[in-house]
Amino acid sequence: MIEQLRAILGDDHVLTGQQIARWTQDWTGAYHFQPLAVVRPANTEQVSAVVKLANRTGTPIVPVSGNTGLTGGTRADGAVMLSLDRMNAIRDIRPDARIAIVEAGVILSTLHDATEAQDLIFPLTFGAKGSAMIGGCLSTNAGGSNVLRYGNTRDLVLGIEAVLPTGEVMTLMSELHKDNSGYNLKHLLIGAEGTLGIITAAVLKLHTKPRAYATAMVAVPSLNDALTLLNRLQEATGGGVEAFEYMPRAYIEGHLAKFPDARAPFDQTFDVNILVEVGATAPRDCTVGPDGQTPVASYLEEVLADMFENGSILDAVVAHNHAQRAEMWQRREVAAEIALAHSPIVNNDIAVPIDKVALFLEQIEARMPALDAGATAITVAHLGDGNVHYTVWPTSLDPVVHDAIMEAVEDVVLELGGSFSAEHGIGTSKLPSMRRRKNPVALMAMRAIKTALDPNGILNPGKVLPD
Amino acid sequence: MIEQLRAILGDDHVLTGQQIARWTQDWTGAYHFQPLAVVRPANTEQVSAVVKLANRTGTPIVPVSGNTGLTGGTRADGAVMLSLDRMNAIRDIRPDARIAIVEAGVILSTLHDATEAQDLIFPLTFGAKGSAMIGGCLSTNAGGSNVLRYGNTRDLVLGIEAVLPTGEVMTLMSELHKDNSGYNLKHLLIGAEGTLGIITAAVLKLHTKPRAYATAMVAVPSLNDALTLLNRLQEATGGGVEAFEYMPRAYIEGHLAKFPDARAPFDQTFDVNILVEVGATAPRDCTVGPDGQTPVASYLEEVLADMFENGSILDAVVAHNHAQRAEMWQRREVAAEIALAHSPIVNNDIAVPIDKVALFLEQIEARMPALDAGATAITVAHLGDGNVHYTVWPTSLDPVVHDAIMEAVEDVVLELGGSFSAEHGIGTSKLPSMRRRKNPVALMAMRAIKTALDPNGILNPGKVLPD
Repeated sequence: MIEQLRAILGDDHVLTGQQIARWTQDWTGAYHFQPLAVVRPANTEQVSAVVKLANRTGTPIVPVSGNTGLTGGTRADGAVMLSLDRMNAIRDIRPDARIAIVEAGVILSTLHDATEAQDLIFPLTFGAKGSAMIGGCLSTNAGGSNVLRYGNTRDLVLGIEAVLPTGEVMTLMSELHKDNSGYNLKHLLIGAEGTLGIITAAVLKLHTKPRAYATAMVAVPSLNDALTLLNRLQEATGGGVEAFEYMPRAYIEGHLAKFPDARAPFDQTFDVNILVEVGATAPRDCTVGPDGQTPVASYLEEVLADMFENGSILDAVVAHNHAQRAEMWQRREVAAEIALAHSPIVNNDIAVPIDKVALFLEQIEARMPALDAGATAITVAHLGDGNVHYTVWPTSLDPVVHDAIMEAVEDVVLELGGSFSAEHGIGTSKLPSMRRRKNPVALMAMRAIKTALDPNGILNPGKVLPD
Repeated sequence: MIEQLRAILGDDHVLTGQQIARWTQDWTGAYHFQPLAVVRPANTEQVSAVVKLANRTGTPIVPVSGNTGLTGGTRADGAVMLSLDRMNAIRDIRPDARIAIVEAGVILSTLHDATEAQDLIFPLTFGAKGSAMIGGCLSTNAGGSNVLRYGNTRDLVLGIEAVLPTGEVMTLMSELHKDNSGYNLKHLLIGAEGTLGIITAAVLKLHTKPRAYATAMVAVPSLNDALTLLNRLQEATGGGVEAFEYMPRAYIEGHLAKFPDARAPFDQTFDVNILVEVGATAPRDCTVGPDGQTPVASYLEEVLADMFENGSILDAVVAHNHAQRAEMWQRREVAAEIALAHSPIVNNDIAVPIDKVALFLEQIEARMPALDAGATAITVAHLGDGNVHYTVWPTSLDPVVHDAIMEAVEDVVLELGGSFSAEHGIGTSKLPSMRRRKNPVALMAMRAIKTALDPNGILNPGKVLPD
């Protein structure tokens, strides 16, 4: 096998033994595995050749790009890991068409820099943006902090190129906003976590870069007041809220404990802390006025002042320059580092209707003492989407207890009409939830599709679909 | 078979013989067929029972809702037509969550009325809105006139319930904006034209109803000037353009010929006529000022005045009341009636990058005389999406000539990076294009999925996938 891979890729790009040390775990450090080899193809043809070989020989292939996932989706014991990192060309950025054509190995923040240089944005953003690559973003349908405004990854993709499990290259690099020519295979592969095909390139939608942002940290008495703030801001700005992030007291404390040089958001401490950002593109909202601020900043400050007046805001700090804005975002973007500061963890990434977030937290916190009396939890939420990262730090080391915690979370979530997996995907860590909670007819259909497209079961086996 | 269907549905809801006269053709009148029977289930359980029976007996089932498609997607010779028209409940509209929960048989304009009563909109709209039903809109991923602002149907759907070809009910009625729990079967069924499942209900996204619209008919020297107008309006309004529709001289003439009581848009006649509409929700854009107009109307008029000044607009009429706005829309929404005034027709629904629309028309018009010297064409376009309805009225009655015209259109479209099917779908009329033009690996994957989910081939056979 190794010899055949070398024949396809050259010796330098088939790594084994000591060379693959860094590939034996993912970013979380929670999953350890021993791949057979790591291959680093230079182009789609090489990906195709490797997959054809694997399909012929029944060798499992685990595609990997930034390896920053949180659900063990790249576990690769005995598999050939196929890294897309050398396929990192931004092939084209066309400002008039508002598209970027990129390969799977482009790092998300590299794409951000390239598009912003042209006054455009690729809006997808989250903490791992400096390592995560486009291939992984698409394969997991990554979410992040401004889904509220711009949608999930799938909403930002016009076309894809992918290598199917048979090794055939499927070229659907559409640049169009309307294309109804048969089943939507693009949406099927996006979010399939590399089990139905390896996405090698994509046509991405770009958006106008907001000319002005207004960013603030706001402390409110309750999550209900937070929703009032969100609705009033959406109303005042015509839907201009880019991000609306919830950090409870324990998160702020966890942040200061993990990063001793960091600053608290307010002089006092509060239970409910919100990072809010409004963006504007229309000239009338962005031009700095005689008072030295943009209209969009005024809209934010007017709403804040009014709510402060009537007691539904306790404190607020508005960013007055780029450094202050960056500090606010930094506090939010290190969430995974804060949550992973403990081991073991029970990692939950759930979504409920946005007016049910408070109820979710109340109900799960009421159930937790019976499951693990000493357990604590670090919560951070994309409140504008109802997406809560509820990470439990159990005292127990017993996997049965960990699974019971996860099951309790699922119970509460499903009672509230939510999802046990909002944006991180299934990987391997959410397989028990899929088995227990996913609509069985949907599971049956997924298995039928997997078997139809990957009859030999070579692509990222053991992920997404429970046995 | 009929007896068994009656046992499931009751005698009144299994129609045969003379009772099904109105079901033997679709709205276009171009396709005639003889179903075995028409069944009208009252609920999902009955749909499931009918499909289970059909799957057991190998009976073809053709789902139908409003029957307003343009591609022969409901041709049903020898099949049981399953009409969703009795499943027409709007189960719930929840303004706070901005969702509507509806059954497949709800007529699109009925949903419009119900949501607008709550200051919300379900934005999908097109000429057949008074007959088209939600089930068909989803099954065809309908487009329409404001995709530019709100996306295609699939972008407006949070969850679906569907009966799979085995008769199993797949319930994915998510109300969430983030849900990454396995393959996206919702997007697979949307646009599958009833070949992979029968969508019986859906959770739909609602949007804030614009508080103010500014609508105008604008004559410009060229399509390039039209794009300048679009870009300037998007810039001035922060992306507020809801619709941007192109009607060339022949369309305006065709409209007046078909509807003698209608009025021409301008005193003079022009080659390039645009219907543009801008919507606004933020209070600052919508409040009527001392000059009697809203700020959003001023933004439009300022851009128009400036472009008129420099000669890149030839004439413009702004709607000053609801009746004037309705008249402008009426002219556009009768497009299908105008195009179908002739028989036979060669119906093309193509998309190209928006800056290539002029080139498409130029190139196809240059090729047409060699194919059918006397042929004329009625063009109307969602210019903001690059989606052109290019309907040819051939003089020849020879299907070979008609197919040659279609092939020439495909040639030009694909050279320009476009799609031979933008929003109407494949049905049966675009099967030759699918066979010739669709990526063969994608076609292979589609066939594998169809076989996996519908092993007996009972659901809407002969549609979407060429033999």
